[in-house]
Formats: sequence, C-alpha cells, structure tokens
Amino acid sequence: METVAIVGVGLIGGSIGMALRAGARAQRVVGIGRNVKNLEEAVRLGAIDAFTTDLARGVVEADVAVVCTPVSRIADDVRSVAAHGPEQILVTDAGSTKLRLVDAIEKDDRARAVFVGGHPIAGSERSGVGHARADLFEGRACVLTPTNRTPGDRLARARAFWGSLGCRLIELDPAEHDRALGLTSHLPHAVAAALAAAVPTDFLSLAGGAFRDCTRVAGADLELWTSIFRENKEPVLRALESFQGELTEFARALRDDDEPSLRRWWQIANANRSAYEALSRPLQISD
Amino acid sequence: METVAIVGVGLIGGSIGMALRAGARAQRVVGIGRNVKNLEEAVRLGAIDAFTTDLARGVVEADVAVVCTPVSRIADDVRSVAAHGPEQILVTDAGSTKLRLVDAIEKDDRARAVFVGGHPIAGSERSGVGHARADLFEGRACVLTPTNRTPGDRLARARAFWGSLGCRLIELDPAEHDRALGLTSHLPHAVAAALAAAVPTDFLSLAGGAFRDCTRVAGADLELWTSIFRENKEPVLRALESFQGELTEFARALRDDDEPSLRRWWQIANANRSAYEALSRPLQISD
Repeated sequence: METVAIVGVGLIGGSIGMALRAGARAQRVVGIGRNVKNLEEAVRLGAIDAFTTDLARGVVEADVAVVCTPVSRIADDVRSVAAHGPEQILVTDAGSTKLRLVDAIEKDDRARAVFVGGHPIAGSERSGVGHARADLFEGRACVLTPTNRTPGDRLARARAFWGSLGCRLIELDPAEHDRALGLTSHLPHAVAAALAAAVPTDFLSLAGGAFRDCTRVAGADLELWTSIFRENKEPVLRALESFQGELTEFARALRDDDEPSLRRWWQIANANRSAYEALSRPLQISD
Repeated sequence: METVAIVGVGLIGGSIGMALRAGARAQRVVGIGRNVKNLEEAVRLGAIDAFTTDLARGVVEADVAVVCTPVSRIADDVRSVAAHGPEQILVTDAGSTKLRLVDAIEKDDRARAVFVGGHPIAGSERSGVGHARADLFEGRACVLTPTNRTPGDRLARARAFWGSLGCRLIELDPAEHDRALGLTSHLPHAVAAALAAAVPTDFLSLAGGAFRDCTRVAGADLELWTSIFRENKEPVLRALESFQGELTEFARALRDDDEPSLRRWWQIANANRSAYEALSRPLQISD
C-alpha cells in the first residue's frame, strides 16, 4: 500500500487513479495539475483522493509518481518530480513516444536513478478525466523502455506497478518502441486525419462504416497529436513512406488493370488483419 | 404484397430477404443463386421462403427482383432477369458501383425499361448470409441512380421498395455516385488494406484501437473488393490522389517542423470528422 502521485489527470492519468483506487492498490492517490476545476472533477469522479497544483508538494510523500502530461512536457515533469520526491521514489510515465524523452531524462543524474519509461497502449479519441475508466488498461499492452542505465530495482517496481493495473508487459528499447508505435499508432492517426480531410463535407452523408471506423481517431486532441508527431518525427516519416509505398503499388496495379497483383495486394492485407485479430480477441470485444 | 426475387443471397441479399419477411412486406421471397447449400442455409435462417438455381424460373412471377451479385456480374444478371421476368417487373440492384453497369444495362431496351440502380450503404467486412440481419438497412442511406432514360413509374416503385427496408433515400446521377463512393467507401477500403499491409506482423501485438478500427475493413472479401476497385477505377484513382495529397502535405509539414501547418492540417480533419458525427448519430450507436 503506497502513495501514488499522478501528474496530469486526464483520460490516462484519471484511469490510472480509478484503477488503483478500485483495486485498493494504493493507500492514497494524489492528483497534480494546473487546472483546479479539472482536479475537482477528478476527485468527484473517484479518480484521485486529493490534489494540488504545486508539483513539489504533491510528490513529497509519493512512493510512485506517474507522469501523464503531453509528450512535449514529460521530460521536464519527470526531472521536477525526481528533484522533489523522496529518495526511494519510482517515477514512470505514460508518454506515447520514448526516445527523445528518455534521452533527455537520462541526462539528469537524479532523474535517471528513479525513472522507467512506460507506455500503456490504451486510450481513445476522447480526452479528459470525464472519459476515464477503471478498466481502461485491462488486458492492454504496456511497453516499458528500460535502458542499460535503468536501475534494476526501479524496473522491478515499474513492472509490478503497471502489471497491477491489468497490463500485459512488453519491454523494448526506446528507439524500437518509437519505430513500432510510429507504425502501429502514429501512422493510423495520420491516415485517419488524411482520410477525414480528403472527403468533401458534401459527401459525408454517403459515408458508411468504413469511413466511420477509419476516421474515428481523427477526432483526437490537437495538442496531444501534434506533440506526438513532432516528438517522433523520423519514425513517423519512415512509417508514412512504407504506407505510401503500399498505396502506390495498389494504384499501379489498378491503373494497369493488373488483377493478379491487385489480388495479391489485398490478400497480404487480409492476412495481416487476420493475424491481428487472432492476437487481440479481448480488444475486439471490450473496445 | 408481392413476390420478390433476390439474385445472390449473401450478406446484402439475405438481409433484404429478412427485412422483407420480418415486416411482412412481401408475400413470397424467392432466393436465386448457384450454391444450393448456401440457399438452404438462407431458408433455414429465414432470409427467403424458397429458392432455385434457375434464374429464369426464379423470376417468372416476381413483381420486384433485386440483383445482389458481385458488381462484375450485375449487368448480365439484370439483363437476364429483365428478359425472363413478367412485363411489369421492377429490377433494382445493390451494387457498390454504378456508372459502368448502368451504361451496360441501358444498352438493352428491355432491361432499361424495368431497371433502377440502387446502392444501400450498409454492409460489413463479413460476407455471407450467415451474417445477414433484418435491420441492416435501418436508417442507412440508399442511393438510387435513375437517368433521364429511367421510366418514372419504376423509379416511384424503387423508392417505395428501398424505403420500405428502412433506408434514407438519396438520388444521384451514376457518375456522381461513383465519384462520391470512390471517396467515402472505396478509398477507406484501400487505405485500410494499405495500413494493414504496412505494419510488420511482429509489431501487431503493439497495435491499439486506432489500428484496429482503421484496418477493420481490410478483412473484407477479396472477390468483392477487387471487383469494386476495377469497376470504379478512375474515381478510385482520383480519390487516392486527393488522399495522397493530404498525406504528402502532412509529411512536408512534419519534415519542416512547420507547426502552424501541422495544426491547421489536423484541425481540418477534426472538423470534417465532427461534421460526419453530427450527421450520423444513429450509425454511431447501432453498429
């Protein structure tokens, strides 16, 4: 039983708080943020026990702190938490990108000694604590990104912490994480937005289920996603190239009426989608 | 109360039969197909009252015939139905593309005199009568594509027929239909497949909700979709160009770290997704 500080109480931070409190996995959950109204709502919704807008005060008794702010702010927030938290604190985060921020954090000796990067692969196109749910992480993957400089005891505690929220743990090097997520998450977000933008508003009444599902995440938060793309620029650009290569091959086969290539192209996509479905049955059902 | 013949009893044809029978909107629903096992299953599931593999016999007493075969076969099937059906028959179809097949049908005097093109915008990545549902068309758009050669009485009957299934009716010229659906449906299918193919199988365990939803329709039927793309080649190629233009602008803004353009780009997508959601609330809830 511990005190857990959550820096940034939105969809992800709020869901972490709810999961900890629902499972009585923390003695006390302290929310830290800048917007008092939002923090009050988080208390009302049962995501946190108490809150403060003063980060230094909020972490002073924390056994664990989870930084859930936008990726462009995570490195600074982790350094502040490390500087003000107790000696034995574990600091982890929920950022969608890892390499740049882990590099920045490891340049600070105190931060490096307490930090393990984390990325729970859960979320929604909706943001804010109003959409938080205690079961958001149940059965979802959480990537931990220790480096050869990460202390072993903090890694063990990070595994226990994220595991207690119901996550399946995966460990990857930060660069590998960013390459993988550039393809599996950042690319689909860019594709969804490009598709939403490509269809003239006049035609939207003719859109069916394919457009609906393909563009769902185009409704996601502007600040969050411009930050993620910029933080993970090179892997996102490389993912876009692979994707554009697939579309270019499709267009070529269609233009040339090259039916065998068109069929092969569709079959590869079909097979990869089936492989995904076989891996992720619980995700299919629970949303 | 009428006799309705359904040519091609899969997801769409089966759902039409179920809707007609559930609402007692037809006296008798006759399924016509090539696969006896499939037709027997359709009877068992309550999609049709009777079946035959002989198209000429199946339509001989039909007041309405709906052709639900793959787009590459619709024009031939409509001509056969028109040739063998009674004088007063109305023939309509459920094909996802329109211009080429309406042109082919109108070259045949008998077919032109009885035909109104239809496209109910409903479906699933799943195919076959086993996935058919009586409420598949409830609240969904159905595009009718009359031309200046379509008889007025057949158009009135086609409106009544598709309207009785619960569809919202929209009327478009066949070329305009193909341009719109190239963007709203065929493009999202191509994009979903390109995305499914672009992500290495090894990374699929890291895929979350964005990948899941964006690639759902990459699981759709090979024959169906290679036919649709080939039938609607030019509009699909033009839709791909618009889409690739959007992605190219995104990549440019990201490469140049042009934050204002990146934000503007995301905002346009966001606004179009919101416009879609405002239009289609029932679709959001029902499936």
